[in-house]
Amino acid sequence: MIERIAILGTGLLGTSAGLALRAAGFGGDLAGWNRSPEGAQAALSMGAINSIAADPLQAARESQVVLLAVPIYATLDWMEKLAGVLGPEHLVTDVGSTKAQITAAAGRLFNRPDRAAFLPGHPMAGKARGGAALGDANLFRGAVWLFTDDPAWERSPNAAALVKDWRAWVVAMGSKTIDLDPARHDELVAWVSHLPQFVATALSALLEEEVGDAPELKIVGGRGLREMTRLGASPFSMWRDIAYTNTEAIETALHALELRIAHIRENLRSPALRDEFEKANRFRRE
Amino acid sequence: MIERIAILGTGLLGTSAGLALRAAGFGGDLAGWNRSPEGAQAALSMGAINSIAADPLQAARESQVVLLAVPIYATLDWMEKLAGVLGPEHLVTDVGSTKAQITAAAGRLFNRPDRAAFLPGHPMAGKARGGAALGDANLFRGAVWLFTDDPAWERSPNAAALVKDWRAWVVAMGSKTIDLDPARHDELVAWVSHLPQFVATALSALLEEEVGDAPELKIVGGRGLREMTRLGASPFSMWRDIAYTNTEAIETALHALELRIAHIRENLRSPALRDEFEKANRFRRE
Repeated sequence: MIERIAILGTGLLGTSAGLALRAAGFGGDLAGWNRSPEGAQAALSMGAINSIAADPLQAARESQVVLLAVPIYATLDWMEKLAGVLGPEHLVTDVGSTKAQITAAAGRLFNRPDRAAFLPGHPMAGKARGGAALGDANLFRGAVWLFTDDPAWERSPNAAALVKDWRAWVVAMGSKTIDLDPARHDELVAWVSHLPQFVATALSALLEEEVGDAPELKIVGGRGLREMTRLGASPFSMWRDIAYTNTEAIETALHALELRIAHIRENLRSPALRDEFEKANRFRRE
Repeated sequence: MIERIAILGTGLLGTSAGLALRAAGFGGDLAGWNRSPEGAQAALSMGAINSIAADPLQAARESQVVLLAVPIYATLDWMEKLAGVLGPEHLVTDVGSTKAQITAAAGRLFNRPDRAAFLPGHPMAGKARGGAALGDANLFRGAVWLFTDDPAWERSPNAAALVKDWRAWVVAMGSKTIDLDPARHDELVAWVSHLPQFVATALSALLEEEVGDAPELKIVGGRGLREMTRLGASPFSMWRDIAYTNTEAIETALHALELRIAHIRENLRSPALRDEFEKANRFRRE
């Protein structure tokens, strides 16, 4: 039974996980660490953690579960550092948005009977802006939490039990879990997550150039415009790592959308436009 | 003072206008007509109109204000029919999403001292799906209602008073009014309204092909995906007229976005990606 969790990175996701665990009835210890002390302090004052760790490696050693809630390259760095200091009494899990590199590192550094377990995870939840202050106990409610666990990994019985227990906490936080192959995961999220983000960025950047100097005209756009550009507020710091670690799949999806928009542009006065609307209508039909 | 209004077309916008007028304290007569009798019946039972007109031209003649709330080509058809049977005691106004052709027709058919007045209007409000049943007294609250009135038009004093009074009712329904040149209107809405729509259609149609046969994967996408594809449900019947009457401006906007997405695709691992995110962040900054 998990009773001591260390959350490394108390940004939006780490803070929300602490709040969601508490809301789901987790009564154990939640130690937190954050690169900026303000983020850790905010998570502490919100009750997402009950202590701030002075030394994150020490906090990891003293916990049973380490939740890495930092950008992807920072996650890979922490994996290198943690692998050497943790043992089969520990589980490390993460929330990174791409899973091929992290899952490969997990196979290389963890998941042997004498090592800590690593469970690669990815909650499909977030907000356009990050930070502990936006932390939300309900962030994961109704969301999908993806895992890219490898059935070939051989874990100690203790580590296997921690993995099972952590999955149960994820369900208790309100998420539906789905297991995917890591390559399939990265391909799928390129379509349903990364593509929408980069399109929103492109649309927002373009509109900033076209109407950004006429703020009275921004208000002309209605709910549709607000929704289609909300993700334009997303931080580069997080998306740079995603772009770097899923480049090919994102390129494929973006190129396919360029062709699709061109097809619509070339058929604004042809019956082919009807086909596009009907196909789009089908995607939105429940 | 306006006391008799005929709403031709009791779909989402016509029904919402009737409900909003009532909520704003309009106590006069609201006659309604709709191509499908079910739509008129729904508007009547919701209280958006207090009578269904058997003969729309007769209802128009008996009213002071005719609100055309139908697609653009139907609006142009009604303008031809109404111009001959109405006089300077009448005002006709509309809610069409493109304004160059409608405003040109208004100058040709209306807006002389011996003719009815025509005030070209465009409330920036709507829902992805249409129909009277979704009618909403608050649809126009906080929205912008654009007008492309021509200062050169010479109206009878009575028609000019009706125009002034209708503008006051639009404000009473909760909208902010902005006056634009019709060509500038069509160019602006191509960027802030038509571009987001066609992008949502392209994205939804593409995703229907990529993941539409795996409905369990649709749920993987979070709020971002839902928002970026909500407009994918929009009906072709309405957007066909918009595509036909604002083709060039929409082509320009779509092509600019294609280039922008290609630029992002070619720079997923370069510092230029940071510039795009920063520009997008600026668009969303309050």
